[in-house]
This record gives sequence, C-alpha cells and structure tokens, in this order.
Amino acid sequence: MKTAITPTREEDYPEWYQQVIKAAELSEVSPVRGCMIIKPWGYALWENIQRVLDEQFKATGHKNVYFPLLIPASFLEKEADHIEGFAKECAVVTHTRLAKNENGKLVPTSPLEDPYIIRPTSETIIGEAFSRWVQSYRDLPLLINQWANVIRWEMRTRMFLRTSEFLWQEGHTAHADEQDARQETLKMLDVYTRFAEEYMAVPVIKGEKSASERFPGAVNTYCIEAMMQDKKALQAGTSHYLGQNFARAFNIKFLNAQGIEAFAHTTSWGVSTRLIGCLIMTHSDDNGLIVPPKLAPVHVVILPIIHKEEQRADILEYCQKIADELRHIQYCGKNLSVEMDQRQLTGGEKAWSWVKKGVPIRIEVGAKEREANTVFLGRRDKEYKDKQAQDLRQFLATVTLQLDEIQETLFNRARDFQQQNTMQMDCEADFYEFFTESDGGFASAHWNGDPAIEAKIKQDLNVTIRCIPLVDQPEPGQCIFSGDHSAQRVIFAKSY
Amino acid sequence: MKTAITPTREEDYPEWYQQVIKAAELSEVSPVRGCMIIKPWGYALWENIQRVLDEQFKATGHKNVYFPLLIPASFLEKEADHIEGFAKECAVVTHTRLAKNENGKLVPTSPLEDPYIIRPTSETIIGEAFSRWVQSYRDLPLLINQWANVIRWEMRTRMFLRTSEFLWQEGHTAHADEQDARQETLKMLDVYTRFAEEYMAVPVIKGEKSASERFPGAVNTYCIEAMMQDKKALQAGTSHYLGQNFARAFNIKFLNAQGIEAFAHTTSWGVSTRLIGCLIMTHSDDNGLIVPPKLAPVHVVILPIIHKEEQRADILEYCQKIADELRHIQYCGKNLSVEMDQRQLTGGEKAWSWVKKGVPIRIEVGAKEREANTVFLGRRDKEYKDKQAQDLRQFLATVTLQLDEIQETLFNRARDFQQQNTMQMDCEADFYEFFTESDGGFASAHWNGDPAIEAKIKQDLNVTIRCIPLVDQPEPGQCIFSGDHSAQRVIFAKSY
Repeated sequence: MKTAITPTREEDYPEWYQQVIKAAELSEVSPVRGCMIIKPWGYALWENIQRVLDEQFKATGHKNVYFPLLIPASFLEKEADHIEGFAKECAVVTHTRLAKNENGKLVPTSPLEDPYIIRPTSETIIGEAFSRWVQSYRDLPLLINQWANVIRWEMRTRMFLRTSEFLWQEGHTAHADEQDARQETLKMLDVYTRFAEEYMAVPVIKGEKSASERFPGAVNTYCIEAMMQDKKALQAGTSHYLGQNFARAFNIKFLNAQGIEAFAHTTSWGVSTRLIGCLIMTHSDDNGLIVPPKLAPVHVVILPIIHKEEQRADILEYCQKIADELRHIQYCGKNLSVEMDQRQLTGGEKAWSWVKKGVPIRIEVGAKEREANTVFLGRRDKEYKDKQAQDLRQFLATVTLQLDEIQETLFNRARDFQQQNTMQMDCEADFYEFFTESDGGFASAHWNGDPAIEAKIKQDLNVTIRCIPLVDQPEPGQCIFSGDHSAQRVIFAKSY
Repeated sequence: MKTAITPTREEDYPEWYQQVIKAAELSEVSPVRGCMIIKPWGYALWENIQRVLDEQFKATGHKNVYFPLLIPASFLEKEADHIEGFAKECAVVTHTRLAKNENGKLVPTSPLEDPYIIRPTSETIIGEAFSRWVQSYRDLPLLINQWANVIRWEMRTRMFLRTSEFLWQEGHTAHADEQDARQETLKMLDVYTRFAEEYMAVPVIKGEKSASERFPGAVNTYCIEAMMQDKKALQAGTSHYLGQNFARAFNIKFLNAQGIEAFAHTTSWGVSTRLIGCLIMTHSDDNGLIVPPKLAPVHVVILPIIHKEEQRADILEYCQKIADELRHIQYCGKNLSVEMDQRQLTGGEKAWSWVKKGVPIRIEVGAKEREANTVFLGRRDKEYKDKQAQDLRQFLATVTLQLDEIQETLFNRARDFQQQNTMQMDCEADFYEFFTESDGGFASAHWNGDPAIEAKIKQDLNVTIRCIPLVDQPEPGQCIFSGDHSAQRVIFAKSY
C-alpha cells in the first residue's frame, strides 16, 4: 500500500521521523550547527502547549519573569556538580564586536575580561537573584517560571528531540523547609503528567531518576517517561528537588519565624520543545503527523471541491457558512480553529496535505454536499478512505464530541501500545534477550540500587533505568542481576 | 507634599524613572552588564502587550515562527549597511566549552572555526530561509513574525529603554512587488499606532525617518514617536521597507506569473520591551506607576480593612463575594483580573503598594462598607485622597465604564501634554532658543532635507529629526535653516 510518508516506520523509523516533520512543515535544519528553524505549523503546536501549561503554572501560584540570556562563567563554578553537567557543552561569548580583517572577513574584536555563557539552564543566575529576594520566611515560598531559549552544545542533534538551542520553560522556586519544597517538586510533576495524558494524549510513567541520571546539582530528579512507537523511552519532563545545594552555593538565606537564619530549599522543573518530538513519535503514522485535537492548531479543515465553475460561488458560500458556524463553537475554552483551503490544487493534493499535517477533521464539500446539506467527513484517527457523509446539522452538533473521541482514541492506542510493550522481567537472561533478540520495550525489573550494575547494563545493551516509578505500595523483591534485596521494580529501556 | 517616589519628576527625572521601576517592582539590574531581570509585575505587562499585538499580527495574516538565536558571522557580511549597523556592538560566540585552568578558573576552550553572533535582529538568517521558501509568486506574500530575545552590546543602558538584551517581536515579510511590500510596511505601522493609542493610551506621531536615522539596510524606515513627560521623544516602534536589498544579498528570487525571475521586496517591523519604558514615562506620576486599564495585570485590588478581630470573617466573606462577582465581568475580551490583598500590613502600607504599582482601581472594604453594602473606591487617575464610597451594586454595574474612563483620561492627558509641548518654529533663532532656554519639546519646522543641517543641529543641540510626519496634505514652506524650499514640516526633538 502506498503511504504518504516514505520510508514507513517499519522500514526506517528515524528517517520516517524526519520525513513526518518535513511533510508536516514543522521545522527544518538551519545554517547554525544543531539548531533548527521552527516553522509556522510547529510553532503553532508550541504556542498551544505554552498556553495550556502557562495557565496551569499560574493556577498553581507561579508568576512569570525573565532573566538574562547570558550567565557569567564564574557563576558555574559555584556548584560543583553543575560545572560537570554544563561546562562541557556551552556556547561561550568572549567578544562584543566584529571587525574586518585584512581579507575583508569579519572577525571578533573587543574581548571581554570575563566571558559569559549562554544559559544552558538558569539555576545559577536565578539563585543569585533569590539570595537578594529572600530575606524572611514571609518571602517564601517564592514561585517563578520563565519561558526561554537555552543552548547546550550537543554533538548529535535531532530535530525537536535534541537540538543545540531549544525553547523551554523553567520553573524555579524557593521554600522555607524540605517538606514544602518536596511537595512543590511532586506537584509540578503532576502538572506535567496531567498535561501529557490529558492534552498530548501521551500516557507516561511518573518516577524518580537513579543517581546517575540526576540533574547536575539535584538531590532528587523526578521525570515522566513516555514510550515511542519504536518502543524506546522518551523523557518528557523533569522536576528537581535541589535541597539546599543551590541555596548554599548562592547564599539564599532567610530568617525563619523563630528569628533563626536558615538556607532555603529550592526546586526547578522544565519541559521543552522536545514535547513536540514526543507528540510526533507517539501518534503519527505512515501518512504523517497526527495531532491530538486539544493541541491542534486547526481542528477542522474545509475542502471545497469545485468541478464546474458555475457551482463555485454556491459551494464557497455554503463552505463559508459552515466555517462561520464552526468558529462559534467552543472547544477546550476557545473557539474552534477552522481553515478553508482554497488553493488551486486538486482535491486529493489538498486533502493529503492536511492529512500530513495531522488535522483531526477534514470535511470535503462539493455540489453533492451542498445539495444535500451534508459534509463528507474524514477523521485523522481513521483510514484515509474511511470517510462518511454527515448531515450538516448533526455534524455541527457533534463536532466537539467527535474531537473528544479522536483525543480518546489516540490516548487509548498509545496506552495499549505502552502496556503491550512493558514486560515484567524476572531473570537476567530474559532481560538481556528482551533487549537483544526482540524489539525491546520497557522492562520492569527488580534492581538492588547499585550504580555499577546500571553502568554495566548501559555498556552491554545501551539500556538505562528510565525511572523508579512512584507507586503507592512498592512491592519488594530480588534484584535480577545480583540476587540482592530490591525495594521495588524499576523501568529499564533504550531511550532518546 | 510628601510623594511616594523620591525624587519627583521635577527634581530629577531620570532618577525618578529608576525609582518608579523599583517601587513598582518592574525590573532590576542583573549581574550581566547592561541586562536587566524582568520581575513578575514587569513581565505581566509584557505578556499583556504580547497578547494584544499577537492577535493583531495574526488577524493581519502573519504566522509565528522561531529562528536560531545564533547567526553565522559571515551572514552579516552580505549586506553592507547591515554590517555598519550591527558589527560594532554584538555578542560573539567563539567557544563551545569551559574548562578549569591551573588556577581553577573556568576559561573558554574548544574554539569554533567560524564564530557566531547572538542575533541583534534576524534579517540575515531569515533572508537565507526566505531564499529557499520563495520559489514562485504563489509563495508570496510570505508573512511571518517571531517573539524573541536579541542582544546589542550597548554602552549606555537604561532599564527597558536601552538594554543589551531585550525582548521584542520582529515581523519579516516578502512580497512580489514594491507596492505590496510598501502597503505591508504602512499597515504594520498602523497596527503599532492603534496599539499605542488604544491600548497604551500613548498618542504618537506617525512618520518616516530621515536617511541618517534609517535602519541599516532599509530603503525607508517608518516609526511612531511619543512624547515623554520630560518632553523628550521616544521611538516606540519601527517598520521598514527593505526594497530588494536583502533579497539581493540573500538571493530571494521567484518566478512571477509571467515566468520571469525577479527579486522579492521585503519588509521588517518590530516593537520591544522598550514599550514598557514608554508606558512608564508617559503616564506615571510622583506616586509611582500608572498602568492603562487595558494593559493592567490587575484591574481591581480589594483591600480588606480589619480593625477588630471579630469582624474578620464577615469582612473577608464580603470581600470574597465582591472578588467573585468582579471576576465574572468581561473587560476587553477577558475576565477582570482582581487581587485581594490579605498581607499583614497596615491599610496605608497596602494601599500605597498598589498605588506604586499603578493598579487602576483600589477598593477598601471595612466594617462600615460591609454594613452599608458599599465599597470605598480610589482611582489611580485621581489624587490618592480623592476616594469615594460607592454602592456595591452600582460599583459592579459601572466598573468597566470606570476603567474606560481611566483609560480615556490617561490618553487625553498625554495628548494634551504632547500638543501643548509641540511648537511650530518658523525661524532658526527661535528653534535654538526652544532647545536651550526652555525645556524644549517637539519642534515642528521646515527643513530642506540636507543631512548636513541635520548633523549640525545634532552637534549643537543634541536634537534630531524624530520623523517626517505622514500627513494627507503636506504643506510646503521654507527651510528655517537654509531658506531653501521644504516639502513639509518635520518633527525635531531630543530623544531617548
């Protein structure tokens, strides 16, 4: 069967991913190493992600701010783990002017005494401000967030998943005590979980990272992990309890209610444009992108099908009426977003271009539909040819229900896939076989907590512990690698 | 009379400006030279500015995108004027790693073969993409915008008005012919004009820049100019017709309907966080910030006044009811934003903190108001002591009207001030006296178009041509400096 995307997922998954991005016009490579250009359709997805998350952050008491892009290099020196994590791959600003050399080429001049790095994350420069803003327990909790670009000079990049520059939000908070900071860390993990499941239609496993995968400078790193269609894991968001590490490094101290000086406890948490990669690889098929309705830049596209010129005005008027009515229908707190495609292309070309962009509902409208007061409807969660005529009134009355149905279908499919490819592994041989002989997936297995075992598995199989799931009642058992006691099963997988 | 801000505008205008920012908690200096930290109240203003403008851009057919922060230094070489404008003051990225030297200090390593600059503006990198995106006349017009941070390494900085890093939007468009591009340039200037006048309550003069003040690489630069309370001009937005300069530099070519290859005509236009500086300096008074209601992060603040502990529950319940009702009232397409201030401060401290933040309406609610079903209302466009009791029902029924009234008052005040301080100057001696003996303002005078005269005036008086106003029927006259013919009056002023 011919597919709109070549190669198919089956044939070459990584290349399929690139081709879906290209066909949907989400982004493209730029002349800047490892950086992409986010095109209108990709950016519209990001705007929708931002809008929903921003509301959630504000509803949980956070205020937006903006900190400088540049960070004095000396700030990195203040937190030892942080240096290790970020000094290796950062863009360093050393000069403030370009001038022509003898060959007419622009070269850097006016060197800076102290270089700056472009933020890879902002704990340090925000920590410096917190040390001034936090004086008394009355100033706590301090809850802020920023939407920003960051740069990490990655060697191997892949659009949306790992780019040298990416867009993200970073929440930073300071609290009077450990308990309050820990609550915040988990609360934001919950915000991310709900967002992934309810908006992105991506089921995730909430858990804690093992020590080797912790954020540089964190006491605990929590994450949500999703399964892509190639059965690899993708970390979709993280939330860190930073203990007093950054408070000590940057002197974030306050007088508590008893008048005693104490260091604050801080947290940070973030999601990035990587979520778009997650969304692509969770739902899309061999015909291109599939966008969950709740995040779709366009919910319904109207395709006027005009065979005879004398029918044009009549059909377009009917289409326009449908568009107007749709645009007055509320969905997820906003009006439906509707496009009417009047480009000079064949009906097939038009329809397929919207299939590849993943628009949830397409309606074709020609003389026949006009006559019968119907629409000919195709849904992106169904086969391309599986279209049906619907009475216009009925369509308008049920369009939001149909969008909800699509949203649910996408979530259920992804959840079923994740469950079918998550295996309990109770001996080492099965575990190794799972990741060598089969396509793999998530392996849920007991582990004694030893980083050496983790390192060996990574070395042998390129498999890591994705997370130690947060479960109400952990079931203890026996480590399948050592026979030691294990507090609970953990999730192993290959990952992005 | 004691004022909340020291010094007053009269005593020391530049310092008053800094103190208004500090008292309203809009922003503060950062450890990065010339860069500021935008605090929650300042960022909330920016978010409101963004929201309104973004809607306008979308309504005029533009789509948002995101281009890389970094630009290859070699790109600047391609447009001669552009180099002159930006190479002198840009942050240059030369290395991609920091490592400790023998003294344990982090220093740059891993040099880049070709350095990057942090975008000072994105005509070049967007031009490169346009050359790929534009192939046929069917691809035109191409209408995009991005919200981004940029860096220009300014020597003298002042919060919001001129910072090394600032936030802005930059629109970039490509068109098939000059007429279409020129129309776009003026259309976006109109969008800015309406935004300034209707939302910021800032009257502006629309006009064209003289050649010496043009954007580097532009054929025509248009701007809106506002008058601050010290009678200096502030350029609040610019829109450029770039002709085919960038199209030639980046090879943006297309086949027109006749199958003939042609260079596109491009435009760019932008406003920045400078608008916040404009807003502060247009409306604020010696008691602090005044925010126009249409952009206010909070429209109404409720101040419960509790003198006796036994009245607390009752008063708070009444306040909560008022807050709930207010939050259901629509204003400018959104629900009213309401704060209830329950901090443990005296009534005066609380009220003054909101005065300094510029919230349009404050209502004090104590036992007396509770009893009488009234609120005690203070408006930021009136004197602090000029408060009055209003019946609760009447207040709720008129609150949006009162906000509109405040908006109008602010605009009218600013317009009157601008008009009172704009003088027609018909001889050179008067002109020089205006800018030396008096406080100055806008001088509307005839000029022959000679850059040498412009340069001399700048040298003598630090006065520049702010714009050549766009007027329906230009009235010709005689240049007051040379006696030559002049096509129309132009606006001279000192400026930010």
